[in-house]
Amino acid sequence: MNAPVKTAITPTRADDFPEWYQQVVKAADLAENSDVRGCMVIKPWGYGLWEQIQRQLDAMFKATGHKNAYFPLFIPLSYLQKEADHVEGFAKECAVVTHHRLDVGPDGKMRPAPGAELTEPLVIRPTSETIIGATYAKWVQSYRDLPILINQWANVVRWELRPRLFLRTAEFLWQEGHTAHETEQEAREETERMLGVYETFARDHLAIPVLTGEKSESERFPGAVQTLCMEAMVQDRRAIQAGTSHFLGQNFARASGIQFVSRANLEEFAWTTSWGVSTRLIGTLLMAHADDDGLVLPPRVAPSQVVILPILGKDESRAAVLDAAHRLAERLRARAFCGEPVRVEIDARDVGGGVKSWEWVKRGVPVRIELGPRDLEKGTAALARRDRGPKEKEFPTLDALVDGIGVTLESIQETLLARALAFREQHTRTIDTEEEFRAFFTPANAAKPEIHGGFALAHWDGSAGVEARIKAELKVTIRCIPRTGDAEPGVCPFSGNPSPRRVVWARSY
Amino acid sequence: MNAPVKTAITPTRADDFPEWYQQVVKAADLAENSDVRGCMVIKPWGYGLWEQIQRQLDAMFKATGHKNAYFPLFIPLSYLQKEADHVEGFAKECAVVTHHRLDVGPDGKMRPAPGAELTEPLVIRPTSETIIGATYAKWVQSYRDLPILINQWANVVRWELRPRLFLRTAEFLWQEGHTAHETEQEAREETERMLGVYETFARDHLAIPVLTGEKSESERFPGAVQTLCMEAMVQDRRAIQAGTSHFLGQNFARASGIQFVSRANLEEFAWTTSWGVSTRLIGTLLMAHADDDGLVLPPRVAPSQVVILPILGKDESRAAVLDAAHRLAERLRARAFCGEPVRVEIDARDVGGGVKSWEWVKRGVPVRIELGPRDLEKGTAALARRDRGPKEKEFPTLDALVDGIGVTLESIQETLLARALAFREQHTRTIDTEEEFRAFFTPANAAKPEIHGGFALAHWDGSAGVEARIKAELKVTIRCIPRTGDAEPGVCPFSGNPSPRRVVWARSY
Repeated sequence: MNAPVKTAITPTRADDFPEWYQQVVKAADLAENSDVRGCMVIKPWGYGLWEQIQRQLDAMFKATGHKNAYFPLFIPLSYLQKEADHVEGFAKECAVVTHHRLDVGPDGKMRPAPGAELTEPLVIRPTSETIIGATYAKWVQSYRDLPILINQWANVVRWELRPRLFLRTAEFLWQEGHTAHETEQEAREETERMLGVYETFARDHLAIPVLTGEKSESERFPGAVQTLCMEAMVQDRRAIQAGTSHFLGQNFARASGIQFVSRANLEEFAWTTSWGVSTRLIGTLLMAHADDDGLVLPPRVAPSQVVILPILGKDESRAAVLDAAHRLAERLRARAFCGEPVRVEIDARDVGGGVKSWEWVKRGVPVRIELGPRDLEKGTAALARRDRGPKEKEFPTLDALVDGIGVTLESIQETLLARALAFREQHTRTIDTEEEFRAFFTPANAAKPEIHGGFALAHWDGSAGVEARIKAELKVTIRCIPRTGDAEPGVCPFSGNPSPRRVVWARSY
Repeated sequence: MNAPVKTAITPTRADDFPEWYQQVVKAADLAENSDVRGCMVIKPWGYGLWEQIQRQLDAMFKATGHKNAYFPLFIPLSYLQKEADHVEGFAKECAVVTHHRLDVGPDGKMRPAPGAELTEPLVIRPTSETIIGATYAKWVQSYRDLPILINQWANVVRWELRPRLFLRTAEFLWQEGHTAHETEQEAREETERMLGVYETFARDHLAIPVLTGEKSESERFPGAVQTLCMEAMVQDRRAIQAGTSHFLGQNFARASGIQFVSRANLEEFAWTTSWGVSTRLIGTLLMAHADDDGLVLPPRVAPSQVVILPILGKDESRAAVLDAAHRLAERLRARAFCGEPVRVEIDARDVGGGVKSWEWVKRGVPVRIELGPRDLEKGTAALARRDRGPKEKEFPTLDALVDGIGVTLESIQETLLARALAFREQHTRTIDTEEEFRAFFTPANAAKPEIHGGFALAHWDGSAGVEARIKAELKVTIRCIPRTGDAEPGVCPFSGNPSPRRVVWARSY
């Protein structure tokens, strides 16, 4: 037997996946819990990652004709009530503003001022369909005013009793696209288009392969006609919903009164869509790529793609090494990766080389370059890639390093995607009997369940009853009904009834 | 007498400045009031302007060593109370969350669920010193953990009883920098540095000249030791505070417990600063530059710097004109202004040419280019600059137009700054007697006050009493105590007491 390898993160993924997750968030300095229950502080490295995600997605939204705008944080209670399913879906997690002033109470402490109660309570937006719908209703008179293609970057609040950093927090950051169209077909096309944007972004930017498809009725967005989604498999083999795109039909248009005079001179309701991704993508990315030494960032979204670690002695070489580090950084920044200048950081803090290097391993920076006095003599540097072992190094000449940086980053990006894809394929199984299904989702050791299961491609007769039973018994749900792949009809292993096609079952976040 | 010129905005600035302001916001499609009292909807053109402001300021913050992060929207009531002046300053405008769930009341309507009352009410951040301070207290142990240089882009809420789009809204967007330092001197330097960043941004990006200085005690940020500010003069000759930078001393560090072990191995409190600008800058920019035909945007922050208006007939020339417009746009985008590609938009909607052109005048786009079938024959286009009369046009060849676009935009940017500077100088007066001061701030016709007054540079004995009396009698306040300019001692015209220097008095927003 091999001696156990010492890892930077304790526990390891295999030992305790949920605790490993928390430890990686901490070690990578991404975020922390605030004293406000359920709310997180996103630290600079975590927010830098969000800034990259935001900037790159934003460019994709603009390239598909969308513009950004901003709508109020507050939603009058009566608005939320306009769509019955919608309010029912969100009522249990709404933060409610009831007062607009504080005063000093009889005990000398501040309190909501009794005389400053709002006549109508305001809900902090859990999502903005109703408030944006009310606005669109004013903007739209004629078919000439359509389509409206707007996105908003905002914070939203959904009260969480069991918060987990990035995955479930009371407040989180997201984008929500809200569009209104003249015809059903246009709105359906928009719903598909934005799912496509998300899928491309997940694959090409986050290096996460996703399955796309439709949600079953029980998992649909409250008030939607159809919810499309993308689902990623992370390293404990669970599914995580990484983005959704909703075809809302005329439900919200009817509720909000988005009406227009059509080409045929008739009053019609608009067809609307909404679509969003959130800071949950950061949690997804972490669970997809991180390892037992910490975070592993796909180069495309890494806040810094390269960190240079000058080895600074106390002797006369110090200035020369620092100077060489800055020159190297400039040369690297003049190179491009994915059409943008390479993002390079120099860490010249007076901290021991080993400690410093491990910090960057844990933060997941794709390329670490160590540069010391002896490298200066030889014109080389030590290069380490985060997709390889922490002690595996190459010693290229500076010229080769600079010339090859784009290829190196590309190679890391590809490796991460290929790895994630192979992992998903390895843990996806076509299943035809309930017995095999149950075995797939049952750990060998119930006392301390090891990582098990994955994606089961099994038939489903379309009944909510089967879905509810499997959820109750195994905590396994239908993640999506694919529109591609194996679409042969068959038999539902749970009911024996006919099934139009296989669907994707999994445990999920 | 000349016939009155017809203007695109009614009323004109001279007729009714506040109403003119609202009409320009509307005509430029910047924003509108939402149904939620005091909250605005920022429309795509207005948000596009904010995106430019945000992006450019953000780059300046990063160039001065700051990183972005994100802190919770909610502040526990007890946090706000930690700094006595602070809570007193904000208590009257706090939105308070008291419940975390809705349920259905006996009348069948939704209500805050009686069983879901929070044990401690949460205030929606009016500003984040206290919640960020509590976080920094955890991060800082030693002088090695300092400085902390962080900025946050966020929404904040300060309940407003008399809201006005961009100028005073219950919810607004802003950035708030929060830094913590080892020494008083470092923190004071930071406070000055960020005021300097704001001043540069206002002058070089927004084309708004500002006066900078210190606030008197009565106008200081609640809890600060010193508030530095920049003040702009807008076209009704009032002052508007466009940005502030606060030296907080050790007040908030003491309140939040930001303590560290110093180089001398002593427990010390950190020295902190905070600084912010908000969507109020958009209102400031409007009132500084807009005219009786609508918004006038400084090219540097315009969402589109050039709009091409193809003149599309119904004949065979249509495709050729549209094609030429696209080719021209590409050529212009290959040119740079202020180191960035020129931002060009094509408006090919089937709307009458006059109507379309006026829309862009009202939206303030710096350069309009009309391109029709006859231009194609001659190889020319019609160019109109927003800093000139709406009918004033040039007819350059396309080559000259493309080659000159950078110079044209630069010239517009300079014209706006020069104009605003001349306006301020024209309406700034050195005043030595209370009589003259009163006359300066008194309109000739009290029934329908015309635009009057401006900045009065007058001595002040430093007493809060004088300040309060002048504010009560004339609604004129000290906008700032400059640190440069005429610093000769003199006599306070209001009290006859000695005065160390002249200060800036004005009516303000």
